[in-house]
Amino acid sequence: MDKKQRIDVNKKYFNNISSRERAIFEGGISMGALFHQFIGTPVSINSVEILEKSIEQSLELQPCVVQVDVVINRKKLEELNTEFDYVSLGGDMLNVNIITEFNETKAYIKMEYVDELKYPLMYIENIE
Amino acid sequence: MDKKQRIDVNKKYFNNISSRERAIFEGGISMGALFHQFIGTPVSINSVEILEKSIEQSLELQPCVVQVDVVINRKKLEELNTEFDYVSLGGDMLNVNIITEFNETKAYIKMEYVDELKYPLMYIENIE
Amino acid sequence: MDKKQRIDVNKKYFNNISSRERAIFEGGISMGALFHQFIGTPVSINSVEILEKSIEQSLELQPCVVQVDVVINRKKLEELNTEFDYVSLGGDMLNVNIITEFNETKAYIKMEYVDELKYPLMYIENIE
Amino acid sequence: MDKKQRIDVNKKYFNNISSRERAIFEGGISMGALFHQFIGTPVSINSVEILEKSIEQSLELQPCVVQVDVVINRKKLEELNTEFDYVSLGGDMLNVNIITEFNETKAYIKMEYVDELKYPLMYIENIE
Repeated sequence: MDKKQRIDVNKKYFNNISSRERAIFEGGISMGALFHQFIGTPVSINSVEILEKSIEQSLELQPCVVQVDVVINRKKLEELNTEFDYVSLGGDMLNVNIITEFNETKAYIKMEYVDELKYPLMYIENIE
Repeated sequence: MDKKQRIDVNKKYFNNISSRERAIFEGGISMGALFHQFIGTPVSINSVEILEKSIEQSLELQPCVVQVDVVINRKKLEELNTEFDYVSLGGDMLNVNIITEFNETKAYIKMEYVDELKYPLMYIENIE
Repeated sequence: MDKKQRIDVNKKYFNNISSRERAIFEGGISMGALFHQFIGTPVSINSVEILEKSIEQSLELQPCVVQVDVVINRKKLEELNTEFDYVSLGGDMLNVNIITEFNETKAYIKMEYVDELKYPLMYIENIE
Repeated sequence: MDKKQRIDVNKKYFNNISSRERAIFEGGISMGALFHQFIGTPVSINSVEILEKSIEQSLELQPCVVQVDVVINRKKLEELNTEFDYVSLGGDMLNVNIITEFNETKAYIKMEYVDELKYPLMYIENIE
């Protein structure tokens, strides 16, 4: 699809929201996508780096996403002492930063596991 | 967690965005989650209804989500003539409406497969 | 696909293994599928029953699968005290029994979380 | 877990099946896991190689798996002309070979999309 068509999509489907809102919307989609696509993936201390990079490159394909940084908690991997020396990727192991951009408005979206909430919280760290 | 704690989370993490933006953000998360959690699920004409309901009830648990309606395209299921009489749920079979709400602002989020784009487009149908 | 074609598939692709082995193979596929499709799904005490049924009906579509029984641990759901009153379905919450059959040989496949191993172990409980 | 414990697991849970059957069972699990974990992942011609490697390294962690080779069909990626220049990974794009081993018995498991069946068929190519 050429640039003109892309602009038409924005006009047709997204003319009812602001650039800020578009950047926030696409950031939310990508965070939800990342979590639910990759949770459960087998991971060990040896495969963790390529998994992080693969998640980043996959999510950077999504609309308006300009950068994805994924850090999987090594401590949990180093500590693990299960039968098979790996774990399924869990929400408490993920720290993610996504930058989205629409019409020069940038949103910095964050996911981190908040211990008091026992919950991988997604929120907007900054928007400008 | 009681109501007070919930308010503190909103104050601590979400005081930099408007109610509109919060409703949009949570709607985006839930759309991305839905797609990437359930794509690939085996489905047939017999199991389609319970799968729709199960997806709806799962996503209605997410923050700020007040209603989820999922329609899986029966035509594709009725037409199918594969060896094993079922298919993996695909993005071209899904039509989803999610209503999110924050502080009395409601966002109506939609996902539908757009044939010209060959893409399951997520957008905001209305916000009020 | 009619019955004749189905037989041809068995002849063409599966004539190098016994009925026992076929039942075991299809049981393994379905266990791996179940775990990696549904881990991460949001679930609460209210939605747990429909999620169990939906998982069962999805997996019963797979080749040679005649019955699937899924029990999600309610204790963990009742205990939960997170901000948002639900959790992502984890491997430590799942207890699954799958019966597969090929040419009158039945395999009883089990997945249960084994505390000593900290691992959701899949194994063959019985075959006859 | 040390070697002795691992042997105990085999004795306790897998003494009712042969080495051939164990290799087949673990191969089935890993194929089902691979398909249902990664189907739906955003992929483009630029990210395809790291995604293949990441899938391989994840699945090689599973019990008895000694080698995984994943080839994602580039043709489909090169042809694609959607709005956003990527697709969700589909079953018709995947060609996978997994080698499992137990007690010197090796199983060669294959998944390929069979056009006549419109189905990503998993079967045992060889066992020795």
